[in-house]
Amino acid sequence: MRLYLASTSPARLATLRAAGVEPVLVSPGVDEEAAAAAAGPLDGPGLVQLLARAKAEAIVDTLVNDRAIDGVILGGDSAFELDGELFGKPHHPEVARERWRAQRGRTGLLHSGHWVIDHRDGAARAAVGGVSTASVTFADISDAEIDAYVATGEPLQVAGAFTIDSLGSAFITRVEGDPHAVVGLSVSLLRSLLLDLGITWSDLWNVPRL
Amino acid sequence: MRLYLASTSPARLATLRAAGVEPVLVSPGVDEEAAAAAAGPLDGPGLVQLLARAKAEAIVDTLVNDRAIDGVILGGDSAFELDGELFGKPHHPEVARERWRAQRGRTGLLHSGHWVIDHRDGAARAAVGGVSTASVTFADISDAEIDAYVATGEPLQVAGAFTIDSLGSAFITRVEGDPHAVVGLSVSLLRSLLLDLGITWSDLWNVPRL
Repeated sequence: MRLYLASTSPARLATLRAAGVEPVLVSPGVDEEAAAAAAGPLDGPGLVQLLARAKAEAIVDTLVNDRAIDGVILGGDSAFELDGELFGKPHHPEVARERWRAQRGRTGLLHSGHWVIDHRDGAARAAVGGVSTASVTFADISDAEIDAYVATGEPLQVAGAFTIDSLGSAFITRVEGDPHAVVGLSVSLLRSLLLDLGITWSDLWNVPRL
Repeated sequence: MRLYLASTSPARLATLRAAGVEPVLVSPGVDEEAAAAAAGPLDGPGLVQLLARAKAEAIVDTLVNDRAIDGVILGGDSAFELDGELFGKPHHPEVARERWRAQRGRTGLLHSGHWVIDHRDGAARAAVGGVSTASVTFADISDAEIDAYVATGEPLQVAGAFTIDSLGSAFITRVEGDPHAVVGLSVSLLRSLLLDLGITWSDLWNVPRL
């Protein structure tokens, strides 16, 4: 039983590996902006569910006649919400500084969507999806700390301008929900979705342990 | 500015490194059972605070005349609580199985104690401590999943018979608190304690970034 990960996120890959599952990596090649525009207005959970599904289905569409895919396909997408507004990657230092000045000392929501296609025996047989939302509370950090953090470059390429599994960990005081949803992949939700498909999570363990 | 970590826990070391701080490792050599017995009855937070302090102070006692320690010393200790009872490492497979049969589908508390001694310029000048407690909710996993998890050996050597940063992640559905406290070291609490000593967290960053 193999897991095909339809995502290029290094954080999702690292999360799966730590959880004992080495996936087959496939790049979904989805135009996320076009897919979101075609769907019309969506809230955070609706958006990440749509894009997670689009990524997983893109793999099946591309490889529909490739009976080599014998396993399950996972698509994932995440978005950060503060005051009802969704935020992606800031990309630029000044944008990252602005975000942090707005979010320090406050609580936002990280939505992670998951879509799993049961593609055992080379055919899509069933699919299930779900969204895991975790609240994230930020420390009330100083302007100097914001400048030091932005100068590392880390916040520029992550949704919400923060990580919880790297330098940003010092600036997050509290999470309510699955902490792995904050990284982009709730392993416990994935276990539960697989169970709905009749698959036992521990059967996917394939990373040698020390 | 160096951080001296008075702990042999690989999880605490990995957490600090991911947060950008490569510590100097020092083994505290504290007889935890004797220290706890000498203190008398303590609740979970009281116990982990006592042992975190004992570990940090053991380093100062050993190296009191060693002016080479120019920085801060961190001691840490953790305990898992369910139904008011404290649990350490199960060590034996049958004990780990029993713990999981008792805790699946339920919520416990992970207490992590921290003690920081300001030892800049080669002398102990001040000390601060704090406890970070996070609630942890377990999935209602099957007997077969418990057996598979225990067979990996992972739960035997960790307090509460689970990890959140490794195979156990699939079996934890929710955390309320700092997820890093579940691993044994709340980075955000450490940042706050250092601030009380007049030290800015980002000044400790010494791990090269990609």
